[in-house]
Amino acid sequence: MRSNGPVGLWLIGAGGTLATTAVVGARAIVRGLADRTGLVSDAPEFAALGLPALDRLRFGGHDIRAVNLAAAARTIARENGSIREEWVGQLEPDLAAVDSEIRPGQAQGSGGAIEAIADSTHVVAANSARACVDEFSGQLRSFVQRHALEGLAVVNVASTEPPPTDPELLADLDRLDRALDAEPATAFRPGLLYAYAAMQAGAAFVNFTASPSCLCGAIEQLAKRKRVPYMGNDGKTGETLVKSGLAPMFRARRLEVMSWVGYNILGNRDGMVLADGDNKRSKIATKDSVLSNILGQPVRTRVGIDFVESLGDSKVAWDYIHFRGFLGHPMAMQFTWQGCDSILAAPLVLDLARFALLALERGESGAMTHLASFFKNPLQSNDHDLYRQLAKLHAYAATAT
Amino acid sequence: MRSNGPVGLWLIGAGGTLATTAVVGARAIVRGLADRTGLVSDAPEFAALGLPALDRLRFGGHDIRAVNLAAAARTIARENGSIREEWVGQLEPDLAAVDSEIRPGQAQGSGGAIEAIADSTHVVAANSARACVDEFSGQLRSFVQRHALEGLAVVNVASTEPPPTDPELLADLDRLDRALDAEPATAFRPGLLYAYAAMQAGAAFVNFTASPSCLCGAIEQLAKRKRVPYMGNDGKTGETLVKSGLAPMFRARRLEVMSWVGYNILGNRDGMVLADGDNKRSKIATKDSVLSNILGQPVRTRVGIDFVESLGDSKVAWDYIHFRGFLGHPMAMQFTWQGCDSILAAPLVLDLARFALLALERGESGAMTHLASFFKNPLQSNDHDLYRQLAKLHAYAATAT
Amino acid sequence: MRSNGPVGLWLIGAGGTLATTAVVGARAIVRGLADRTGLVSDAPEFAALGLPALDRLRFGGHDIRAVNLAAAARTIARENGSIREEWVGQLEPDLAAVDSEIRPGQAQGSGGAIEAIADSTHVVAANSARACVDEFSGQLRSFVQRHALEGLAVVNVASTEPPPTDPELLADLDRLDRALDAEPATAFRPGLLYAYAAMQAGAAFVNFTASPSCLCGAIEQLAKRKRVPYMGNDGKTGETLVKSGLAPMFRARRLEVMSWVGYNILGNRDGMVLADGDNKRSKIATKDSVLSNILGQPVRTRVGIDFVESLGDSKVAWDYIHFRGFLGHPMAMQFTWQGCDSILAAPLVLDLARFALLALERGESGAMTHLASFFKNPLQSNDHDLYRQLAKLHAYAATAT
Amino acid sequence: MRSNGPVGLWLIGAGGTLATTAVVGARAIVRGLADRTGLVSDAPEFAALGLPALDRLRFGGHDIRAVNLAAAARTIARENGSIREEWVGQLEPDLAAVDSEIRPGQAQGSGGAIEAIADSTHVVAANSARACVDEFSGQLRSFVQRHALEGLAVVNVASTEPPPTDPELLADLDRLDRALDAEPATAFRPGLLYAYAAMQAGAAFVNFTASPSCLCGAIEQLAKRKRVPYMGNDGKTGETLVKSGLAPMFRARRLEVMSWVGYNILGNRDGMVLADGDNKRSKIATKDSVLSNILGQPVRTRVGIDFVESLGDSKVAWDYIHFRGFLGHPMAMQFTWQGCDSILAAPLVLDLARFALLALERGESGAMTHLASFFKNPLQSNDHDLYRQLAKLHAYAATAT
Repeated sequence: MRSNGPVGLWLIGAGGTLATTAVVGARAIVRGLADRTGLVSDAPEFAALGLPALDRLRFGGHDIRAVNLAAAARTIARENGSIREEWVGQLEPDLAAVDSEIRPGQAQGSGGAIEAIADSTHVVAANSARACVDEFSGQLRSFVQRHALEGLAVVNVASTEPPPTDPELLADLDRLDRALDAEPATAFRPGLLYAYAAMQAGAAFVNFTASPSCLCGAIEQLAKRKRVPYMGNDGKTGETLVKSGLAPMFRARRLEVMSWVGYNILGNRDGMVLADGDNKRSKIATKDSVLSNILGQPVRTRVGIDFVESLGDSKVAWDYIHFRGFLGHPMAMQFTWQGCDSILAAPLVLDLARFALLALERGESGAMTHLASFFKNPLQSNDHDLYRQLAKLHAYAATAT
Repeated sequence: MRSNGPVGLWLIGAGGTLATTAVVGARAIVRGLADRTGLVSDAPEFAALGLPALDRLRFGGHDIRAVNLAAAARTIARENGSIREEWVGQLEPDLAAVDSEIRPGQAQGSGGAIEAIADSTHVVAANSARACVDEFSGQLRSFVQRHALEGLAVVNVASTEPPPTDPELLADLDRLDRALDAEPATAFRPGLLYAYAAMQAGAAFVNFTASPSCLCGAIEQLAKRKRVPYMGNDGKTGETLVKSGLAPMFRARRLEVMSWVGYNILGNRDGMVLADGDNKRSKIATKDSVLSNILGQPVRTRVGIDFVESLGDSKVAWDYIHFRGFLGHPMAMQFTWQGCDSILAAPLVLDLARFALLALERGESGAMTHLASFFKNPLQSNDHDLYRQLAKLHAYAATAT
Repeated sequence: MRSNGPVGLWLIGAGGTLATTAVVGARAIVRGLADRTGLVSDAPEFAALGLPALDRLRFGGHDIRAVNLAAAARTIARENGSIREEWVGQLEPDLAAVDSEIRPGQAQGSGGAIEAIADSTHVVAANSARACVDEFSGQLRSFVQRHALEGLAVVNVASTEPPPTDPELLADLDRLDRALDAEPATAFRPGLLYAYAAMQAGAAFVNFTASPSCLCGAIEQLAKRKRVPYMGNDGKTGETLVKSGLAPMFRARRLEVMSWVGYNILGNRDGMVLADGDNKRSKIATKDSVLSNILGQPVRTRVGIDFVESLGDSKVAWDYIHFRGFLGHPMAMQFTWQGCDSILAAPLVLDLARFALLALERGESGAMTHLASFFKNPLQSNDHDLYRQLAKLHAYAATAT
Repeated sequence: MRSNGPVGLWLIGAGGTLATTAVVGARAIVRGLADRTGLVSDAPEFAALGLPALDRLRFGGHDIRAVNLAAAARTIARENGSIREEWVGQLEPDLAAVDSEIRPGQAQGSGGAIEAIADSTHVVAANSARACVDEFSGQLRSFVQRHALEGLAVVNVASTEPPPTDPELLADLDRLDRALDAEPATAFRPGLLYAYAAMQAGAAFVNFTASPSCLCGAIEQLAKRKRVPYMGNDGKTGETLVKSGLAPMFRARRLEVMSWVGYNILGNRDGMVLADGDNKRSKIATKDSVLSNILGQPVRTRVGIDFVESLGDSKVAWDYIHFRGFLGHPMAMQFTWQGCDSILAAPLVLDLARFALLALERGESGAMTHLASFFKNPLQSNDHDLYRQLAKLHAYAATAT
């Protein structure tokens, strides 16, 4: 018999627009204020799986700035319109309860663009990397105990970090452990510390960002040792989602894509951070690997990203696909995707938490490759075709039921 | 052991741009002048099936105008650029051989727009419907004998006809047979007569157009009686192809499509015929059924088609997709598809002929539902999702091998 | 010396989204809540003209439904986001004052689509056409007296009516006068009655809609007799604005536009009314005349309009421009315009009222051709080039100062 | 009385796609093979000006690769379709005559991307800068004498060079003269040497590229001394043309453009050269200055350029315009421009040559500011509004006639 007790969702970057939208959205649904559009985990194919209901979720998290979710939600309502002002009033006690579960995070090491937005009075005090990890880990355990949680999923929704400064260090757990003991916290990308802490606390871990340090080789070894499930990288929410859904059509018809170039503009904090060259590199790497994989042929690709402040949380992508058909004749398709970043991402965060908590409950560990369809750059998955990825998820659902 | 003798492809509308492109293309590939881009049947999944090679195909057909394929190909080369002028010279003897296998067709009854482009000296003389069918059928049998063909596929690539004037008459074979005996040929849409003749001659029949008379209930009964395979309707070449490949993405992510409207402009003869309201009705009916089927929810759709002569054989479609995501937030996607009509359709005609000839050889009869992915409105198929349709084709290939 | 007393703006269709946005916007600006973006009359070129300031405007109008501007504004705020909820509270007394100046209108004769949305308890009682005109006229005079207005402009912002049933009747004032005496009000399009009443009351009249009855020949004769200024037809707010601003570029570079087709989708009441074929005819006629005028060459045009309810007050237009350049080479441009109908139109209504009130004050009468740039189909103007139209407005400003 | 003798057009980059298209186009028009679409100088406004007819033009030029115009034209015909193969046969003698007037150019100093495509056997031998200039200048004078030309225009259509290495050196003619005497040719951007040579030979000079060295301060001083007319920089052919034609519409309606971002992809040699960061810098600088000038307000702009080889000479630009209207409401417009680079530019090269030759004949000297509408970054012009620029050209025509 399935249990029905509370389960936890701990968000790295808990005060950001995405986390705010996920928390407000989950509570608005539970309170009957909003409908459930956009929740993949609600599909009939997963009905028999016993995924945890949204009302079982308890929220907490880390952030590098003081968090007031109601205030953040009101700002989103006013500037973006994606949360309704009237909901915030009705959810005020729920949101205040989450606020009390937010702990200071680690900003140093995440690149200048992120460091610039950190609030120095709201970052973790620990100097040594090991102490920092242990502090994070302790906070997770304490969260579990305080709410008698039956499971905990940690989802990283912070801004994208630059690639690691010393990739080799992250390839091996023993070496990493020695470095954590010897070095200050600032010698590491914070994403690495959060991931380590999550696994140390027995939580499932999901890297919804492109930050490459989170699920490096050493962390995967740690997950194996701790027998916890994990998955990443980089939620597939917009332009890349469309690519992975559209490229299979070209392949199926044996139309030869010669060039597929895309240009993304966005105006939220994520976009501002990506305007920084270092952080952008991490992002473009994950966005650009999709097409050649699906099409199985050389294709000229380009992914441009620019910060256009007036767009706020809106995200506009233009893609141009230049292809050859029968007798080599050139043709073209172009699309413009006009999405709202946090609205596209928030339900996936809830979906991933539900699937991760189920995996944890079922004692599954290692990379949750059945969740590949949720990621731009899915770990241990060699197929970017959205429909083949979904077929794997449905197969998991069929056997797991 | 598979045979390697010649097989026939008989094209209704043999002198049109689509048929010309298919014939020139097939011969250009066989002669090593052009590559095989765009041929679905070439995919590795079908390698073991033993589909007939292109060099086994012998071409003939019906048309309501005198046909000179080399001249038609040169016009296409000059106006559209999709056939290369230099190929035509090298293929001259091949094309002249096909010209000699084109027989007069039937224009009366296909609607004013088609009748207007018919050449009165190049339409069949037979007055009674039965005589007309018998004449067509005799021409097919004679074509088979003349070339010692091991099988024959008839593919209708003529312009779209209006809906039948008396749909009930077409629901029952006995009733149709009586009417064919009693009425003049002009009382029927020509597509019906071609389809009847094809089956009477033991050929496989594919309706690549939207003409609804071709594969009516009576004709399906005839196919059963004659034990021949058939499939239709309306080749899925452009905007509808994209719809059927893109809509599953929205469904998979549980994004609620509120409205999906499309506007098509094209400038070839097909477009001119569709500018006629009667013929347009047939076309829009097949184009518009796709989305609600895939999305499984009510969705406001519109499909506009206009004739824009300057486009020639180019076809431009703009689609606007208005959808709701998490918390009901509205977002939008739009795409522009700029294809060349005959270049998109021609390889599918060859693909369908190859699959139909294989089915005939294997003694399969009835609707070839494994070919649903090729059609806007696939017969006896209740799934418009491109990827589920392809899965069926792959399953057929796996079991048939 | 310029006077500074109150002036009147009387809106036909006073409770609609456009009128509500114009009234709320004007009051929000006067109260310092909103900025003045989008007001053409604010341009420095017109600074010396002495246009009436927005705080001099008093609002009233006719409508065929009971009007509550605050409630209408709140609906717009919630559904469309183009008015801010917080403004409505602060403007409540202002809006209530306007509500008290709204009088029942005439619905019969405006076509089934408009009649269907009329509230039978809120339409004028007068049976004869003459009585109806006199009643409207009396309401205007009473409005002027009640507020001691120094001038009155009547602007028609109601939904588009079908073409007149008897165009010849509208060509001559004497004939029209006899018919007004003899026939019931329902024998005429309401727009005609409003225009007649406006001029009879000495008001300036602006037809912001495409309704062709309003400024027919007979009404132009009446304007001459009454010495009042007037202008129309059909505010140039979106797709047509872009056309008239972009086509001059093609002409200047002697690029030959072969085809320019557009497809418009919109979801507000205006769009619903246009979904009715009769009303649509009036609209498309004014939209389609622009291009050939500017380009000075034959060009294939098409203007499609569809009602897509989910768009609400948003309006999306896609235009495809197919043109030939040097050596006859074909090229293409396409654009998508995503505007908010009432937000684009409302400032123009205020601009036109200000210019019309100035003309009245200056004793100008007849067609205000210097306002051609504001209209899709400007009266007595043979130039649709936006920049040449603007040059005329600037010339007027220069000489009138 | 106007003379009717031959006049010269000397092209820097004479073997490139643009120059080939201009020469083939002019000769095709003169021979009656092609029509005159796209020639601005043909507009009726200029009929009375006495611009030199196309049949008076004699062609020559410099290039850094051996030039065979017929072969180049055939390649364009095959790969791009913008020149018709059949014309090339008929123009063969004309093109061979031009080939014989092409002289080796200077590649060193134009940046690695351009140097890489130079043919070392086809670059000028002169080592010192002064000798190089004198050699170029002598070639121009010899061209004039050989054909008894009544005037000569030199138009630079070579690929864009990087900014000058020592901008201060180019600010003063005396300083430049000393440097030309002292330094090797490779110390300067070749564009500078060509411009100097042109003026020294008494030719009019037009910089159709973005290369900033060509019309530096020192060269402008030289033009004054030599009393020759000149103009630049960077032909306004595509995306920037649209911007300068469309932005005035936003200003006229007082719509506040918040962001206007553009993304350009192209596949010709010009695009390949621009893929090099150094050369790109010159280009983006001229493309980006247009909008703030026209809109007269701060606006966030971005201009991205990427090389997409499969496009060949096609050029696709996508622009997204995010603007605020009445009450601050955000709206958007986007456009896609699909042009053929050389087809858009070639007629302007002929137009500019005709206007420059007229100016020379009329004894005008200095910057031809009446030609501002032809340039992305017009010299000594502070107005980028296409229509105001055109008004200046029309005013010149009116007074010059």
